[in-house]
Amino acid sequence: MPQEMSLKRSIVKYRDQDFHNLEDDIVTEFPLTIHVNNEEFATMVCTPVNLEEMVAGFLASEGVIRLRDDINKLSIDEEKGFAYVELHHQNIMNQQMYSKRFIGSCCGKSRQFYFHNDVKTAKTSTVETTITAEQCISLMREMQESSHVFKGTGGVHNAAICTQEEMIVSRTDIGRHNALDKLYGHCLLNKIPVRDKILVFSGRISSEVLTKAAKIGVGIVLSKSAPTDLAIKLAEDLNITAVGFIRGSSFNVYSHPSRIVLK
Amino acid sequence: MPQEMSLKRSIVKYRDQDFHNLEDDIVTEFPLTIHVNNEEFATMVCTPVNLEEMVAGFLASEGVIRLRDDINKLSIDEEKGFAYVELHHQNIMNQQMYSKRFIGSCCGKSRQFYFHNDVKTAKTSTVETTITAEQCISLMREMQESSHVFKGTGGVHNAAICTQEEMIVSRTDIGRHNALDKLYGHCLLNKIPVRDKILVFSGRISSEVLTKAAKIGVGIVLSKSAPTDLAIKLAEDLNITAVGFIRGSSFNVYSHPSRIVLK
Repeated sequence: MPQEMSLKRSIVKYRDQDFHNLEDDIVTEFPLTIHVNNEEFATMVCTPVNLEEMVAGFLASEGVIRLRDDINKLSIDEEKGFAYVELHHQNIMNQQMYSKRFIGSCCGKSRQFYFHNDVKTAKTSTVETTITAEQCISLMREMQESSHVFKGTGGVHNAAICTQEEMIVSRTDIGRHNALDKLYGHCLLNKIPVRDKILVFSGRISSEVLTKAAKIGVGIVLSKSAPTDLAIKLAEDLNITAVGFIRGSSFNVYSHPSRIVLK
Repeated sequence: MPQEMSLKRSIVKYRDQDFHNLEDDIVTEFPLTIHVNNEEFATMVCTPVNLEEMVAGFLASEGVIRLRDDINKLSIDEEKGFAYVELHHQNIMNQQMYSKRFIGSCCGKSRQFYFHNDVKTAKTSTVETTITAEQCISLMREMQESSHVFKGTGGVHNAAICTQEEMIVSRTDIGRHNALDKLYGHCLLNKIPVRDKILVFSGRISSEVLTKAAKIGVGIVLSKSAPTDLAIKLAEDLNITAVGFIRGSSFNVYSHPSRIVLK
């Protein structure tokens, strides 16, 4: 099993109208099967670093745990590609529930929540944090410049938790959701308060990414890419400021623009 | 429910060191819950066009159907966001199987197949189709130029089935897998033979994308982006030519380069 984020491979490059043999950096992919309380829970394909954090963040996203202290034991067998989690409680949500669509208006949430677990775990933001336009641009630049794997291989997503002034922690994965789960897991395992922080993300803001941001608990999401309409509606409902297309010296604000200020 | 691939929304743009209010195109996201033989099967979030094709392609990818004729009835309730599928056979694979990790070397396949259904459905390519370097570049250009939604919103993936000379059909979705499922479904529903064709894709070649290409049955995959190591190993095993980073007038060949020729 690969333990590196990227490795060298021989490839054929076509350039200047001819083929050239050369070595290139290739991003690695690692399948990890998670067992919870001795039951197989899920298999994810991911970048093989920060696996404990990813497992913790994934379980928190799914509503299986809420706090670090819900976990009794968490171990990774990198050789075999297994994660073993022992919880203090036994009531893991019925796995069948995950794929069941949730429709209705009980619990006061809008019908834009499509899965049972999201209703339980996504939080409406109440923070009044603001950030300047120039800080948005410089946080995105800081995250992207710190991602060495991306520079080498072009195949991964980055997600970071930041204050207005600087990046606190950044996580990388071939999967957009895995990068977010690693980040969430890191904050959870290290008990880092995040509600007044800013989430910076290299990928598109889909409804699933926005929902994950709400579960993590941030009020501001900065992205290099486009949001979807459903993500914007969710951002409006959950009082989250969604910023996209941060490229060069410009960007777009799609919801709750009052948190983004000129100075 | 949105029925359009994109819609207009008011946004705030930061440019030239100031905020500007303007209208922008936003790609839409649509949740679709699939029922098979009166049982809830899965919920996908997708771009709301070509939904019949997506459902057919998804069921074929999952090994639930093999041919168009396995489907007795397929209808979409766009208002509610439901798809109803009636099959001629009752033996849908146990849903529990989907998430179960497959490890072992039965059936002669390598251990790079991690899911039961993939072992059943991914095919080793036996085609001897070749394509010139210039054709690779022009097919990618043709697909990307034909994608109006991408130009407007920047938020979707494209996948196309092509001959060496031209694009036959192209499908678009916010989800990489959905775009591929729509394409697969289109070929299946219209009984288009694909094994001698070329798959052109805007996204990264992950192991899941490569596996899906093998299920569709093509021998050549052309991508604008990077492959992962696991995808390259699978491509080697399945005798598929994987080409990545087709940008401007250059690209990289990662496996079975003999199918890519100078003239």
